[in-house]
Amino acid sequence: MANQKPSIPKGTRDFLPEEMVRRNYIFDTIRAVFELYGYQPVETPAMENLTTLLGKYGEEGDKLLFRILNSGDYLKGVTESTSQQVTGHQSPIASSPQHHSTTAPRHHGTPSLVPRPSSFDLSRFTQQISEKGLRYDLTVPLARFVVQHQHKLTFPFKRYQIQPVWRADRPQKGRYREFFQCDVDVIGSDSLLYEVEMIQIIDEIFTRLNLPVVIRVNNRKILAGIAEAIGVSEKLTDITTAIDKFDKIGLDKVNEELSERGLSAESIERLQSVLTLEGKIKEKKGFLEQLLTGSETGIQGLEELCHVLKYLKSLDVRNKFEFDVRLARGLTYYTGIIIEVMARDISIGSLCGGGRYDDLTGIFGVPGLFATGVSFGADRIYDVLLKQKLFPDAIQSTTRLLFVNFGDEEERFSMKLLGEVRKAGIPAEIYPEAVKLKKQLDYANRKEVPFVALAGKEEILSGKVTLKNMKTGEQRSVPANRLIEYIQ
Amino acid sequence: MANQKPSIPKGTRDFLPEEMVRRNYIFDTIRAVFELYGYQPVETPAMENLTTLLGKYGEEGDKLLFRILNSGDYLKGVTESTSQQVTGHQSPIASSPQHHSTTAPRHHGTPSLVPRPSSFDLSRFTQQISEKGLRYDLTVPLARFVVQHQHKLTFPFKRYQIQPVWRADRPQKGRYREFFQCDVDVIGSDSLLYEVEMIQIIDEIFTRLNLPVVIRVNNRKILAGIAEAIGVSEKLTDITTAIDKFDKIGLDKVNEELSERGLSAESIERLQSVLTLEGKIKEKKGFLEQLLTGSETGIQGLEELCHVLKYLKSLDVRNKFEFDVRLARGLTYYTGIIIEVMARDISIGSLCGGGRYDDLTGIFGVPGLFATGVSFGADRIYDVLLKQKLFPDAIQSTTRLLFVNFGDEEERFSMKLLGEVRKAGIPAEIYPEAVKLKKQLDYANRKEVPFVALAGKEEILSGKVTLKNMKTGEQRSVPANRLIEYIQ
Repeated sequence: MANQKPSIPKGTRDFLPEEMVRRNYIFDTIRAVFELYGYQPVETPAMENLTTLLGKYGEEGDKLLFRILNSGDYLKGVTESTSQQVTGHQSPIASSPQHHSTTAPRHHGTPSLVPRPSSFDLSRFTQQISEKGLRYDLTVPLARFVVQHQHKLTFPFKRYQIQPVWRADRPQKGRYREFFQCDVDVIGSDSLLYEVEMIQIIDEIFTRLNLPVVIRVNNRKILAGIAEAIGVSEKLTDITTAIDKFDKIGLDKVNEELSERGLSAESIERLQSVLTLEGKIKEKKGFLEQLLTGSETGIQGLEELCHVLKYLKSLDVRNKFEFDVRLARGLTYYTGIIIEVMARDISIGSLCGGGRYDDLTGIFGVPGLFATGVSFGADRIYDVLLKQKLFPDAIQSTTRLLFVNFGDEEERFSMKLLGEVRKAGIPAEIYPEAVKLKKQLDYANRKEVPFVALAGKEEILSGKVTLKNMKTGEQRSVPANRLIEYIQ
Repeated sequence: MANQKPSIPKGTRDFLPEEMVRRNYIFDTIRAVFELYGYQPVETPAMENLTTLLGKYGEEGDKLLFRILNSGDYLKGVTESTSQQVTGHQSPIASSPQHHSTTAPRHHGTPSLVPRPSSFDLSRFTQQISEKGLRYDLTVPLARFVVQHQHKLTFPFKRYQIQPVWRADRPQKGRYREFFQCDVDVIGSDSLLYEVEMIQIIDEIFTRLNLPVVIRVNNRKILAGIAEAIGVSEKLTDITTAIDKFDKIGLDKVNEELSERGLSAESIERLQSVLTLEGKIKEKKGFLEQLLTGSETGIQGLEELCHVLKYLKSLDVRNKFEFDVRLARGLTYYTGIIIEVMARDISIGSLCGGGRYDDLTGIFGVPGLFATGVSFGADRIYDVLLKQKLFPDAIQSTTRLLFVNFGDEEERFSMKLLGEVRKAGIPAEIYPEAVKLKKQLDYANRKEVPFVALAGKEEILSGKVTLKNMKTGEQRSVPANRLIEYIQ
C-alpha cells in the first residue's frame, strides 16, 4: 500500500483554496437571493433508499445511480428462502448455508454458492445486496421530504437546497460524477406569481454575478396544444424531444428526427410555421391564438405565459427574457411554464432551468401538491465566470497580514500585536519559525498576503513596526498601536 | 411503488429550515475563526478510491466503510482470468462466460456461476465488485490531497475542511451514519506555535458560541516516557487505551483493565501516582520531572507541553485549559501534544479534539511532513447549544415582511413595494393568492414572519400601508414610501 500514487475516482474533483473561494462566491450569491425571496434552507442525506430513487429517472437514470453495498455480510440475505419469498423461485446465486452440510470453513454466515448459471438475474441480485443509493438530483429527495415531513411544514413551502448529487455518467469535459445543484422550489401553490418570482430570482442572481443572460420561457401546455392542433396529441413527447434540439442541430435535422419518430409529412409541414416562429411576443401570441383555437389546453398555456410576461414587464427585470415556443426541456414531468437560462455572450449551454411540475409528490402517494422551481448549475456558472473573467478580485479570502518571525523575544511581541489585529476581525498569522527572511516573504507571496509586518529588536524598542506592502514593495514604519489603521 | 411511505436510511437525517439555520450558525462561526487565523478552505469528493481508505482506520474501520458498487455490469470483472491474475487462484464465485458453452440466455456479459463454496472469499469478492468508498473522515483525504497536490500548495499549508463523513456504525442516540466534521490542520511545520494557535482557535470559537469549555492537553511523549519509566515501553498502547477511559470508568476499572492487558501488579502500582495526579501545572510538572528522569522522550514531551501552556498564559485565553496526564485519545497516530475539549457545565463527551500527528502523508509515500490539527464535532456542539438554550434568537433567517394578497390590483401595487423592500436587502414575500385574511396571517405566524403589510384599495388610494407587528399584534398606518424604515 505504501508509495502508491494516490488519486481520486474519475469524474470527481478536489477543490483547492483558490477554487473554493470562487465557488463560495457563487453559492453565497445564490443563497443570499434565495433568502431575500423568503426561501428557507433544507438538506437531505447523501444516501437515499433505492425504493425512493428507482423508477424516478427513467431506465437510463436507474443505471446511472451509484449504489451502496449493504453493510456487513451483505450476501447473507441472498438466501434460498429470501429469494423464494421475493420471487417464488430458488435464489439464482446462493442458497442458505443451513440447507447444506459442508465441512469446509464457512465465512460467518456467507451462503455457499449453488450453480444456477442459466437463471441468474443480475438486477435481482443487485437489489438484494444493495438497498441504498447516492442522491441523483434534489427533486426526488424534495418530493420524499415533503411527503415525509408534510405535517411539520408551512405551505406554500418555499425551500432551497444546495448540495452535491452523484451520477455514474461517463466523465467528460465539463461533466462530473459529483457536482452541486442549487435548487429553489415552492410546493403547494398553483399561483403564477411563483413563476414570476422564479424569473425575478434568476434575474437578480445573474445581475449580482455580473453575467448577462437570456431567460427563455415557454409553456408545456402550448406544446400540447400545438400537438393537438396538428392532430398528433399522442406524439407530444416525440415532438418535444425533437424540437428541444433545435438550437443544437437546426431545422433540417429536427424535421428528419420528427419523421423518424413517425410524424407524417403533413404534420411536419404544419409544424414548420411553429418551428420558425420569430418576432415580438405580441406577434407570436397572435399567431398561436389562431393556431390553438380549439385546444383548450393550448389557449390556457398561452394565457398563463402572457400573464407572466406582462407581469415581468411591469417589474424591474434587467436581463432579457423571451418567449421561445421551441423551448421544450427534456424532462416530461413539467406540466406548465418552463424556463431556461443561457449566457448572452458565450455559448455554453443552459446555466439554469426549471418550471412547473404539478403532482411531484404523487409518486409517494400524496397527489395534488403543485410545485414550481428552478435549478442553478454551479459548475457551468463557474466555468463562464472564469472564462469571462467575471470573478471579483475582492473575494480572495486569505490572510491580510503576516508577521515575520525573528526569534523568541520578537515572536512574543508579535503574538500580542497579532491578537489585536485578529480582534479587529482582520485575518492574520505569524510565520512559525525564525527562518531566513526570504523564505518567510516567499510564503507571503505564494499565499498572496498583501501586507507583512516586521518587528525586530530595534522596532520593539521604539514601539514601532515596519509594514511592507507586498504589491508595491513599499515599506513604512508605523506605531505598533496603530498598525490596524494601515492595513484596512 | 406508488403509495409507499417514504423514509430515509437509518442513521441519516433530513434537516428542516429551523435546524439548518442553527447548524449554519455553528458552521459560520467555526469558518469565520478558521479564516481569521489564516486557514483556507478545501473540499474533497465524497467518494475516494478504496485503495486510499482501506487499512487506514484499523480492521474495525475497514468494516465501517460504506462501499460503492461498481457501475454497470460489476460482475463482469469477477472472472477466472482476472481472479487468477490477482490471486493466483481460480475465481471462487464465477468464471468467464467464454469458458463455458451454454444455451441458456445470458445477461450481457454476466459470468455464469460456478460452484466453489468451500473456497469462497467474501472479502476478495467485495474487492472485485467495489472500488470506491464514502469518505470516513477528513484526515486520510487530507493526506491524500496533500500528496496529490503538493506542488501546488504553499507550506506550511493551513487548510480547513467542513464536510460530511459516513460510517456504517450501528446508529444510536447522538451517533449518526452521516455527520459533519469541521477540521483545521496545518501541514509542513513542527513549530509548537501551531499547537498554541489550535488552542487559541478553540478558545475563540467556543467564546463566540457562548459555550464555556475546558481544554485539556497532554503529550503522547509524556505517556511514552511514563511507560518507559516504569519499564513497560512495549505496553504503551495498552496503557493509553486503558487510562483513556479514566473519566468514564474510574480508577479501579482502569487498574483492572491494565491487569487484563498484561501489566504486572508492580507496574500498575507504579502507575497509581500518575493516574491520581492532581494539582497545579507546576506541581504536576515537578512530579513528572522526577518520574521521567532518564526518559529523553518523556522530558522532551514535558518541555513541549510547558512551553505551550506558558505561551497560552501570556495570551488572552478565556476558557479554562489544563494539563491532564490521563488524557490519551485512542488514535495511535498522534505523536506529540494532544488536545481535547469538554463542555464545562454539561457532561456530553468531547466537543473537539486533535493534536500533532507527524508523518501523516507517510502512508502515501511522502514521509517527513509534520502536521497538527483539531476537529470540531458539529453535531455534539449542536446538541449542547440546544440543551443549554445558547442559540441566539437573531439567527432565525426567515422572511421579515409578508404582503397580504387582496386581489389583482392590490397585488400589483404590493409587488412594486415588495421590490423596494428586497432592494433594501430585507427578505420579503407576498402571499400568492387572494384567499381569506386568516389563512394568510396563519402562514405568516407559522413561518414566524415578524411583520405583515396590508395594502387594500383604501390604502392604495391614500398611498399608505397598514403594517402589523405579528408579535405584539400592534397595527399602524405608514406611508408606502417609508415602509422600509418601520421594519428595520
